[in-house]
Amino acid sequence: MNKINIGLIGYGVVGSGVVKLLNQRKAYIENKFKTEFVIRTLCDLRIPQGSTKGLEKTILTKKIETVLDDPAIEIVVELIGGLHPAKEIVVGALKRGKHVVTANKALIANSGKELFRLAKKQNCHLYFESSVGAGTPIIKTITEGIVGNKFRSLYGIINGTCNYILSEMTDKNYSFGQALKAAQKQGYAEHNPTLDINGMDSVNKLAILAYLAFGKFIDVKDIYREGITHISHDDIEYTKSLGLSIKLLAIAKKENKKIEVRVHPTLISEDHPLASIDGIYNAFYIKTDPLGNILLSGEGAGQMAAASGVVSDLINYASRGSTSALPCNLYSEASGLKIKKIDQVRTKFYLRFMATDKPGVLSVITGILGKHGISINSVTQKAHNPTSTVPVIMLTNYTSEKKLRLALDKIYKLHVIKSHPVAIRMEKLS
Amino acid sequence: MNKINIGLIGYGVVGSGVVKLLNQRKAYIENKFKTEFVIRTLCDLRIPQGSTKGLEKTILTKKIETVLDDPAIEIVVELIGGLHPAKEIVVGALKRGKHVVTANKALIANSGKELFRLAKKQNCHLYFESSVGAGTPIIKTITEGIVGNKFRSLYGIINGTCNYILSEMTDKNYSFGQALKAAQKQGYAEHNPTLDINGMDSVNKLAILAYLAFGKFIDVKDIYREGITHISHDDIEYTKSLGLSIKLLAIAKKENKKIEVRVHPTLISEDHPLASIDGIYNAFYIKTDPLGNILLSGEGAGQMAAASGVVSDLINYASRGSTSALPCNLYSEASGLKIKKIDQVRTKFYLRFMATDKPGVLSVITGILGKHGISINSVTQKAHNPTSTVPVIMLTNYTSEKKLRLALDKIYKLHVIKSHPVAIRMEKLS
Repeated sequence: MNKINIGLIGYGVVGSGVVKLLNQRKAYIENKFKTEFVIRTLCDLRIPQGSTKGLEKTILTKKIETVLDDPAIEIVVELIGGLHPAKEIVVGALKRGKHVVTANKALIANSGKELFRLAKKQNCHLYFESSVGAGTPIIKTITEGIVGNKFRSLYGIINGTCNYILSEMTDKNYSFGQALKAAQKQGYAEHNPTLDINGMDSVNKLAILAYLAFGKFIDVKDIYREGITHISHDDIEYTKSLGLSIKLLAIAKKENKKIEVRVHPTLISEDHPLASIDGIYNAFYIKTDPLGNILLSGEGAGQMAAASGVVSDLINYASRGSTSALPCNLYSEASGLKIKKIDQVRTKFYLRFMATDKPGVLSVITGILGKHGISINSVTQKAHNPTSTVPVIMLTNYTSEKKLRLALDKIYKLHVIKSHPVAIRMEKLS
Repeated sequence: MNKINIGLIGYGVVGSGVVKLLNQRKAYIENKFKTEFVIRTLCDLRIPQGSTKGLEKTILTKKIETVLDDPAIEIVVELIGGLHPAKEIVVGALKRGKHVVTANKALIANSGKELFRLAKKQNCHLYFESSVGAGTPIIKTITEGIVGNKFRSLYGIINGTCNYILSEMTDKNYSFGQALKAAQKQGYAEHNPTLDINGMDSVNKLAILAYLAFGKFIDVKDIYREGITHISHDDIEYTKSLGLSIKLLAIAKKENKKIEVRVHPTLISEDHPLASIDGIYNAFYIKTDPLGNILLSGEGAGQMAAASGVVSDLINYASRGSTSALPCNLYSEASGLKIKKIDQVRTKFYLRFMATDKPGVLSVITGILGKHGISINSVTQKAHNPTSTVPVIMLTNYTSEKKLRLALDKIYKLHVIKSHPVAIRMEKLS
């Protein structure tokens, strides 16, 4: 029997889930993998009374050093989240030759480059499956499962809160506010949901995935970000009638040494498998060469979903032994790749203008779009009501973001236009 | 640079794809994984003239021993398919301490137990990602990606030919014969498509997946099998109108130490993501605990899709080094598991009877079903035509296969029933 001493730092939701799952799967892991995982030390500032079932032989401490300085600890599991002191813990562990498992997306997104390099130097493993998609094995799929392929693009529904809100808005005719409340009631949104609904959570995860797929570390500040707070129920209705489904997508594409990375509400065909990924599920749609398109979907959040990713990491560590090289190989940067500015990105757009309902309005709007080189694929005027404003819906052909912004600014200044034009990007995933 | 000498046996469609892909990805593999793969020897009975691009420094041979007895060859790639001499090749390689990559589903399905045990004994790696789903990484997902979980059930669309035929029948109103011809024209079905359309190909793949998920080797003869040749266009129409979609599913379930393994046409809700997997795509829907349900989908056949799985295996071998243990751990059998006979399996059924259209027929049929303890959830009579036979459609509640067969035998003997009753199993996946 291979005995592996773990130092577990962080006994919150995920940490206690890991303890629970390791206990549940103890016999299986011992029988199949000839490995006994022992949580030698548990470090947390506050361990609730009565919550230490399965930890009777474990040293409880508030001091990180008790874990880091213990030579008997072979692998450190960091589950406190956030940048500090998580980074100091991971760096400290690697510097002492300990292997690391973490579920910390902010840490890997912001400091991955430094940590992968350090792990390589120290010949240590660094696992982080649960940092994206919880236990849904997207990290392993990209780094190992389809590693023989060249990655062309990646589209992810990687924030369960936003996907739940958009699904509720679509299926139940909820407003954004109503859907957010429903998400909070179900425990799918935090009391303060800002980082989810403004897209920042997705940005962190996209930085990780884009690095793994394309080999370029991207500063999260360089990722274009737009959340879902401005999505109105009207636009969901109008786009549904056009056969489109709205998702908060994290998108990374590589073409001719240029990388596009962006997170924003995106319209996709309702026939595409990604459109049927509802509620808190995450999904990843990856275009590769030569394998083609692959789709992976699963629960992307929750105590036990995240714990299952951490335990899978631990078993994979135990199975492959400490001498193998792959995790260290993660520090390997492709050369010459540049990031495209959002201005240069070309997509199709759904546009909605609230315009006075009188003859000639359409011609003025399409005239301005035409002058900026933007072709229109379809126009729908939702209702006629001469005394009031009506929505004018247009689907454009491909245009650069820059041209579109210039055109919309001009259109907004027209006295027949009564509110800010709405523009939502469309993606053809096929 | 880590130099790895490969002995490639089999230079057919997949073998030549592997050579092509290794050449295309050479710089990438060398840069990122510090590994140079050298095809030292290529063994095939017939190597077409002019097809050896990228093999200028390779020894060409017709003798398997030239590969097996060469101490410089570290890993043997077996791509000839079939049971013999593939088995002798893989056994011979392992016995000489060589690692193996194979894409041979029949070999792993029939001799996996023996080969995994031998690999373990020899401390060798045995990779077989492309044996199921080509390069779509279902093997790695089960054995590593979600290894921390307990598997409850697995549903696979694992034969692209059948999925293409059923998709064409559904979308284009083709008969089975028309759809098969279309598949052959597109190169998606063999000239002799028997092993695909009778479900045998899916049975082999299911045996592999069920072993990996549940730890029990299952004789392919113990897997219930029903192909798609008897599926009529009428039933596709009728089930579509009931919100159901028909797929050839490979199903494995475990409950209370009993395993169900079966391959047959299956009706699922058209809202389920698996229902939207069309054409030659494969998909795997796995229910696990605690992660929940995960879906993986991708191209399951084709030269380069299969080659990408083989090349991913090679890179993973190179990355983890020869000392790690996981592949050998595949020989590990769970104890006490029994296989449920098909008679004992309980599902819901779609039934169609061609009956004389006269009063009392429904009552006789439902009477017989009722006597066998089979409840009916819905009945539809498709059209009234007193001079002729009409289809009577029923959806049953859960019933054992045995009871249903007894009831159908009795119903078929009624003089008002004009042809063999049609029965298609239904599965609730959500």
